[in-house]
Amino acid sequence: MKTFLDKDFLLQTDAAKELYHEHAAKMPIIDYHCHLIPAMVANDYQFKSLTEIWLGGDHYKWRAMRTNGVDERYCTGTDTTDWEKFEKWAETVPYTMRNPLYHWTHLELKTAFGIEKLLSPKTAREIYDECTAKLQTPEYSARNLMRRYHVEVVCTTDDPIDSLEYHKKCKDDGFEIKVLPAWRPDKAMAVEVPADFRAYVEKLSDVSGLTISRFDDMIAALRKRQDFFASMGCKLSDHGIEEFYAEDYTSAEIDAIFNKVYGGQMLTQSEILKFKSAMLIVFAEMDAEKGWTQQFHYGAIRNNNTKMFKQLGPDTGFDSIGEFNTAKVMAKFLDKLNSEGKLAKTILYNLNPCANEVIATMLGNFQDGTVPGKIQFGSGWWFLDQKDGMEKQMNALSVLGLLSRFVGMLTDSRSFLSYPRHEYFRRTLCNLIGNDVENGLLPASEMDFLGQMVENISYYNAKNFFQF
Amino acid sequence: MKTFLDKDFLLQTDAAKELYHEHAAKMPIIDYHCHLIPAMVANDYQFKSLTEIWLGGDHYKWRAMRTNGVDERYCTGTDTTDWEKFEKWAETVPYTMRNPLYHWTHLELKTAFGIEKLLSPKTAREIYDECTAKLQTPEYSARNLMRRYHVEVVCTTDDPIDSLEYHKKCKDDGFEIKVLPAWRPDKAMAVEVPADFRAYVEKLSDVSGLTISRFDDMIAALRKRQDFFASMGCKLSDHGIEEFYAEDYTSAEIDAIFNKVYGGQMLTQSEILKFKSAMLIVFAEMDAEKGWTQQFHYGAIRNNNTKMFKQLGPDTGFDSIGEFNTAKVMAKFLDKLNSEGKLAKTILYNLNPCANEVIATMLGNFQDGTVPGKIQFGSGWWFLDQKDGMEKQMNALSVLGLLSRFVGMLTDSRSFLSYPRHEYFRRTLCNLIGNDVENGLLPASEMDFLGQMVENISYYNAKNFFQF
Amino acid sequence: MKTFLDKDFLLQTDAAKELYHEHAAKMPIIDYHCHLIPAMVANDYQFKSLTEIWLGGDHYKWRAMRTNGVDERYCTGTDTTDWEKFEKWAETVPYTMRNPLYHWTHLELKTAFGIEKLLSPKTAREIYDECTAKLQTPEYSARNLMRRYHVEVVCTTDDPIDSLEYHKKCKDDGFEIKVLPAWRPDKAMAVEVPADFRAYVEKLSDVSGLTISRFDDMIAALRKRQDFFASMGCKLSDHGIEEFYAEDYTSAEIDAIFNKVYGGQMLTQSEILKFKSAMLIVFAEMDAEKGWTQQFHYGAIRNNNTKMFKQLGPDTGFDSIGEFNTAKVMAKFLDKLNSEGKLAKTILYNLNPCANEVIATMLGNFQDGTVPGKIQFGSGWWFLDQKDGMEKQMNALSVLGLLSRFVGMLTDSRSFLSYPRHEYFRRTLCNLIGNDVENGLLPASEMDFLGQMVENISYYNAKNFFQF
Repeated sequence: MKTFLDKDFLLQTDAAKELYHEHAAKMPIIDYHCHLIPAMVANDYQFKSLTEIWLGGDHYKWRAMRTNGVDERYCTGTDTTDWEKFEKWAETVPYTMRNPLYHWTHLELKTAFGIEKLLSPKTAREIYDECTAKLQTPEYSARNLMRRYHVEVVCTTDDPIDSLEYHKKCKDDGFEIKVLPAWRPDKAMAVEVPADFRAYVEKLSDVSGLTISRFDDMIAALRKRQDFFASMGCKLSDHGIEEFYAEDYTSAEIDAIFNKVYGGQMLTQSEILKFKSAMLIVFAEMDAEKGWTQQFHYGAIRNNNTKMFKQLGPDTGFDSIGEFNTAKVMAKFLDKLNSEGKLAKTILYNLNPCANEVIATMLGNFQDGTVPGKIQFGSGWWFLDQKDGMEKQMNALSVLGLLSRFVGMLTDSRSFLSYPRHEYFRRTLCNLIGNDVENGLLPASEMDFLGQMVENISYYNAKNFFQF
Repeated sequence: MKTFLDKDFLLQTDAAKELYHEHAAKMPIIDYHCHLIPAMVANDYQFKSLTEIWLGGDHYKWRAMRTNGVDERYCTGTDTTDWEKFEKWAETVPYTMRNPLYHWTHLELKTAFGIEKLLSPKTAREIYDECTAKLQTPEYSARNLMRRYHVEVVCTTDDPIDSLEYHKKCKDDGFEIKVLPAWRPDKAMAVEVPADFRAYVEKLSDVSGLTISRFDDMIAALRKRQDFFASMGCKLSDHGIEEFYAEDYTSAEIDAIFNKVYGGQMLTQSEILKFKSAMLIVFAEMDAEKGWTQQFHYGAIRNNNTKMFKQLGPDTGFDSIGEFNTAKVMAKFLDKLNSEGKLAKTILYNLNPCANEVIATMLGNFQDGTVPGKIQFGSGWWFLDQKDGMEKQMNALSVLGLLSRFVGMLTDSRSFLSYPRHEYFRRTLCNLIGNDVENGLLPASEMDFLGQMVENISYYNAKNFFQF
Repeated sequence: MKTFLDKDFLLQTDAAKELYHEHAAKMPIIDYHCHLIPAMVANDYQFKSLTEIWLGGDHYKWRAMRTNGVDERYCTGTDTTDWEKFEKWAETVPYTMRNPLYHWTHLELKTAFGIEKLLSPKTAREIYDECTAKLQTPEYSARNLMRRYHVEVVCTTDDPIDSLEYHKKCKDDGFEIKVLPAWRPDKAMAVEVPADFRAYVEKLSDVSGLTISRFDDMIAALRKRQDFFASMGCKLSDHGIEEFYAEDYTSAEIDAIFNKVYGGQMLTQSEILKFKSAMLIVFAEMDAEKGWTQQFHYGAIRNNNTKMFKQLGPDTGFDSIGEFNTAKVMAKFLDKLNSEGKLAKTILYNLNPCANEVIATMLGNFQDGTVPGKIQFGSGWWFLDQKDGMEKQMNALSVLGLLSRFVGMLTDSRSFLSYPRHEYFRRTLCNLIGNDVENGLLPASEMDFLGQMVENISYYNAKNFFQF
């Protein structure tokens, strides 16, 4: 019987252990897509308690607590103390067995704080106190947490109108870990509410210093911002879309749609789709020109609980996996770019695992031999970012594409304690390959190549692909 | 090599064996959704032959026989004897290897009749004779079969117009096993054929003693029936729907639609959808008011074989798994209720395993901390009610929700011999958890908690959730 | 640790080894659906190099090479030598680890050429030279390659207008392996481009010797060709469709649509769907009359890369898995035929594994007891023709139907080196069953039956089902 969470956690075979300990574990971390708050890095933030760093903003944990019968006051309430919230989380933890939260919780306690006890009501107080005390020491500042996990690069998620002042401060300080911006222009295509769109465009005008009165002006302003992002080391864009959009449209139509929505009028569904289709193409062309990598995260249905949305806003644990048949539209979108010679390096992330095989075979349609793995299947995203989801993603990629060229893991996280997910991913990867070696599906004579492959997927592929 | 169907059937690890034998096996059965015929319990029915109890009405077996090249006469024909039918089934059994029928068949022979031989043409006669003889003894009456399997509660499936006289008889007799009705009002929203709908409404009027001439009258009659069901111990409703419906509608529209269909006119597709949407909301609100649990079984496409439908009617083995993208509509429906504070405890059952992750993440959108596991992912339904289907459902629930709060298994069966499916489910559950312990994915130190968790999923969660 | 690709490759248990070596391995090959070029068999073609037989036309390998960063010149270019292309392939091979190409490559080298070395840049030259030399000996002619793999029957894929002259030559030569045509009339329903359709109909008129001026004439000509195909030993049809079509239509409508498109006018989308619906029914009725088996391959989205399509044409590696909700339409189509008593033996092949459970349960709707396994779930097709895809297909078929009645494997291949895929399939099959025996899910006492079942799925089921 294997011991829980020991050094060989998730590693079932000798080959897996060798691959992990001799290769994967030694690699630094490139976290090319995350949601860290740049100001916290810039200011080397010091957390007040384990609750702040662990439960503040973590809607995964809130969902588990709500499911476990915990009142909302202990999730997001303002009338409960940090300790009261933590106590409820500790009560919930044993009920999360078989959920990735159970693994993440204990992996984070172990790797960040050296705590090997299981979290439960019995151990809650002592763990809370020990971690909270440690968090108040310099060793546990934001930057030192990043150093502890051998992070080399992080790419945050930033709006075109962001000043990037904190990225600049990190660089100016000589912080040795690269904190780079990434370009996430979702608001520039959010035309559902005319007033919100107008407000956004006005901010864009301010920040860019360009007057915006028609569509081309907006694009010019975005291009100016993109140049600025590039100058700050940006290498990736990211697009959160419900599904792909590839309606046909004319310039004249898009100009008219812009004028209409900017003028305060609601658009029809057809106009919205045309506008989004146009913007996706514009952004993709900009990515291609810059040599950036574009990321598409699609397939969520968001803010399903209106009551809680009114109370707490977005990203509070009320989103779920959607059902979209978007393969043909995705192909049309990528084909249009490819035909124009403007298809950038691309990463496709799906949220419904049913699309794994669709994505994994879509890649091959547009691989053109210019860059190994030019079109990438993104690592298990959001709900799929766990052992089962990762395994399915890697297995689909393996049998329908080339796992060896995969750029690997990212945290997509707001937390400075999420880096062990890279460890979790690497152990899972090594275990898959190790099982194949053990079962005679891969030749044991090729352990050197497999070791290199594991290092590539853990680190070198991303480094070379994104050109950090 | 493990022995087929021995005491450790399906249990691959020591941890699994401990969890099953020390915990799961000891729990009584709560069968909270089934299709037993209440009159058979009330009258303590005695079966005439193994064919009657085993092949009569069992469309799973008929499908296997048809696939195996057996003529319809031996499935549903009236010109063949019980023995002739059984003989054909016995010929088919070896050809069902790897199908759940092979397991169920031998598990039922073993647990009900103590027969450990494999069923095949060689053993057919002796098994048929032995079982048929036993079935004619009091020990094998309907009630005694239920006692044999330690059943504590069953919930049947009943139309609002049912008299529930047999449920009453069971109670009046002092039968110690609770035989409770469940509310299945599908016919009240089946407006496709005006004449059928009118006939149903007229019966509803008779049974309720209320005159029905408009929509509100029908609702009043349904409410009166629901009070009666509640007085008879009903705790659950159940809705068989192809997919979810959440069209917008007004009261005036629904009134008009009712009048139109009740008046004998065919409805348009749009009217049908509005009416079904309205009825789903009405029923859901009624469930919330009563504190019942509402169940939704969706995703089947039914009666695909017109020729056989004309010959045999529904539920004769000509249904299959559909493809529906219903996530957004499901979310809209649940959100509407939640916004009104009228979302009852809910169980969602899907038929296409591709929706597992959709459902498992939908739950979290509406968990509100009032009841642990308020929104439930129903156990593998119909075609998915087998080892592979159960494992996928439990794995999805585990990684995307809380397995620990799962209300567990139900038979959904018409047969008094189906209770071993609870054993089958529990073994599968224990095996999943046991494998995790064995592989170091769960801590071996927590076997007490895991034992309690297994008992909860097998019995206590359902008991507490439904408030039996 | 198991050795890579030794005699027990893919066989994890003693039961699996026994089933494979004592049963499966001994069976001849019936390859009832492939894309061999009949002229090459008729002329007993001798290949010029390993590149010609292995890389010419193999878009699986091209996709892998493109993904690995190899320039198109080395995939399909005319300005590179056979050796240069091979060298690039050899560089790519190690990067295909975990992709089926890695297994197929080494299985083909081993079984065709006796080479047990791994292909890599280091071994490329020697392997290329040895295989190329062997290919130029009579032992490696097209026919002798077929003999080497114990092929008994192959069914090619042929258009109704094909002369079948090469099939005739094979027979006239007394070639002991049956080379039979199969009927693939896709072009007769391809009405998207009027000029192409007209050209096709004119060729059909020439070949059949019948004047075609209206719809019924075309059908008469097709029937005449079908008689000819039948006289040449044809037993199967095959239809490549994006999804199923079952629109309602009248004869008058179809006549008018034919006249319109034949007259050179573009059809509307609705007319196209009606015409395809009508043609699918016509072809299905013809299959039923002849007692043939009809195959439907659905679910691909093709030619997604317009730029490369213009350069290379179809079937060059730019197709992928689509997303279609076609279950209801498929049911309607099959039901219409079944109601008329004209439902032929049928094989349904899906490309998206999400449809596995849909297909596996669709079968049961139309099994009628006349032929065991009358409606079949086709073996993992195209992208799914690998261990993971095969296992999912066989598992779905097992739990939702009868694996025992499965007609098994086909190569669907253009290559004379693809026969080891039957070995690969059989090993996978034996491994699945062997694992069940090992784990007590199937009784070890029934190894005789299981051995027979393996022989049936490998060979006898196909032989009996298709009546070769």
